[in-house]
Amino acid sequence: MNFNLRKKMPYKAISGIGEFGLIDRIAALVQPTLSAVPKLLTGIGDDCAVFQPSAELLQVATTDMLAEQVHFDLLTTPLKHLGSKAISVNVSDICAMNATPRYALIAVAVPASFPITMIEELYIGMSHAAKEYEIAIAGGDTSSSQSGLVISVTMIGEVSPEQITRRSGAKPGDLLCVTGSLGGAAAGLKLLTREKEIMLNHLENNEPYSKNVMAELKEYSEVIQQQLLPLARIDIVRFFHSRNIRPSSMIDISDGLSSDLQHICQQSKTGALIRERSIPISSSTRRVADEMQDDALTWALTSGEDYQLLFTISKEEYQRITDNKKISVIGEITDQEAGVHLVDIYGMNIDLASIRGFDHFSA
Amino acid sequence: MNFNLRKKMPYKAISGIGEFGLIDRIAALVQPTLSAVPKLLTGIGDDCAVFQPSAELLQVATTDMLAEQVHFDLLTTPLKHLGSKAISVNVSDICAMNATPRYALIAVAVPASFPITMIEELYIGMSHAAKEYEIAIAGGDTSSSQSGLVISVTMIGEVSPEQITRRSGAKPGDLLCVTGSLGGAAAGLKLLTREKEIMLNHLENNEPYSKNVMAELKEYSEVIQQQLLPLARIDIVRFFHSRNIRPSSMIDISDGLSSDLQHICQQSKTGALIRERSIPISSSTRRVADEMQDDALTWALTSGEDYQLLFTISKEEYQRITDNKKISVIGEITDQEAGVHLVDIYGMNIDLASIRGFDHFSA
Repeated sequence: MNFNLRKKMPYKAISGIGEFGLIDRIAALVQPTLSAVPKLLTGIGDDCAVFQPSAELLQVATTDMLAEQVHFDLLTTPLKHLGSKAISVNVSDICAMNATPRYALIAVAVPASFPITMIEELYIGMSHAAKEYEIAIAGGDTSSSQSGLVISVTMIGEVSPEQITRRSGAKPGDLLCVTGSLGGAAAGLKLLTREKEIMLNHLENNEPYSKNVMAELKEYSEVIQQQLLPLARIDIVRFFHSRNIRPSSMIDISDGLSSDLQHICQQSKTGALIRERSIPISSSTRRVADEMQDDALTWALTSGEDYQLLFTISKEEYQRITDNKKISVIGEITDQEAGVHLVDIYGMNIDLASIRGFDHFSA
Repeated sequence: MNFNLRKKMPYKAISGIGEFGLIDRIAALVQPTLSAVPKLLTGIGDDCAVFQPSAELLQVATTDMLAEQVHFDLLTTPLKHLGSKAISVNVSDICAMNATPRYALIAVAVPASFPITMIEELYIGMSHAAKEYEIAIAGGDTSSSQSGLVISVTMIGEVSPEQITRRSGAKPGDLLCVTGSLGGAAAGLKLLTREKEIMLNHLENNEPYSKNVMAELKEYSEVIQQQLLPLARIDIVRFFHSRNIRPSSMIDISDGLSSDLQHICQQSKTGALIRERSIPISSSTRRVADEMQDDALTWALTSGEDYQLLFTISKEEYQRITDNKKISVIGEITDQEAGVHLVDIYGMNIDLASIRGFDHFSA
């Protein structure tokens, strides 16, 4: 068979406009549907859609799809961990709205030749995570796949109109805060990718892949866990609710600090200034970066999957949360004209607009 | 490389237990998560999950994943139609609860080499369907795919506690009703598959595939439309609401009449008796079946994708809907002990337990 149609027809591929270009076009196409449903308050453009079932309650909803060989590699990802992560990344989006997750719908496409036990492992991981977050797995869809495992999770959460936190409320003078530490998930991925290559090399050369050739991974367990088993910061949302704190804006860091900070600044129409020396990077992450002759700051700025919360809060409100040691102040919101910058440890001012996060469709 | 691990380890593949076997195992694994969320009234086992945001309102939610080469073939499916169908199949599940659809979240995984215009066509189709059903496309997720297009749609609807209709409320003596006609989507698929083979044969042999060799598809447009562009029966739900009618049970026919009727009987703990001569099959569908020397009744019983509603209603209530010509009575609910049977045109009694619908994982 000879299909030359594609070669003959010049066309513009998605890789030419990138993920955010594609999202902009999709948003323009679906935007006209919003007017039919007045209870739908927010569509594309925040961590979650916002729907108002009744006057005193808001509902937030998000969906994330994970595809084999794109988002995960079964050679380095135990299925139980994968199930848990699929739940956590969606809970993280709910947390970014300062909301409480309630229930999930899960669709999976799976090759018919897959062992049943592997799919059971996946759902054991999901159920375990669901219990931790106190959400119900309420339904879903299963179908066969011609090509690898695909998991799509949709999560619904609830929040009061007084508590909901969007990307758009940051004000100049607000402090920029981040939870936990950044760059760990990237460090874990680098290690797992290295280990996989070692294993495949040994198998290709018919050499035994035994414990002797395996790197001693135990010493790296912190960052590997951050990659394979990230936890959504529901503890922080509960902390905010217990203190009756509402950040002025919030997002979860799934594309890297640089990209996600720019989302907040775009939606809030502000600038921002962050300091390298204030960005929390764990000693384990720094050690892996040194070992790999790579740069931990770049990981923190551009690698996603840390699933920490980035939020802004007024200086007065911040005084009420200083005792929470999981929260670091990394900078301040500025006027929009000032742009979005990082001051590095040498005092150099770097424009973050030039540093983007992960793009699924980058060429 | 030599991976013989799989051959050495005997294991049970999903194909060995089928789709419903897999769903049973998944349901058992996730069932313990439900107790954490009292507002989640119904989990796996109906057309939608049911959640109660407030005392006077119920929310229903469903998700469906469509994968290339499993659910659709881009050689025979225009992307605009595919987008519309992805919305319709989810709206159909909402309708099966006698609920009104409100908003959708859409996740797509797409190869980076895809032309942008093709993805835009997909979303144009989705937006068009959304406008027809008066729902909002509220958000979603986009990512690249290593292997074909995958679309996952989640739909949220609303219904009052007085109107909600489950699979489980059928009572012996209730009439069994179906909307529209059955088997048309199967007829359309057979035609499209035949046409595709003709086209590929011509291309393989370097013969021109011109209008002369194309079957005159116009005369088949009714069944092709039922396959490519099914419409969810929101008109029937609106009719029920306008008359204040609540069927005793309802399901949408996505797996074939036989399989979906059995779902109602299992959940309602009843039997059923349907008559072949009452099953609505259009003359177009019968003509295609004759032409293909196939059986239109088998299509109606075992082919899914008709997305008609199958419901039960008491004989008294039925008197209030006899004027609706889109509704046919096909039989009656019986005691559970009587089983689920079809009486064919020769008076033969056929046990429908032996006739199953589509199974994604059948070997």
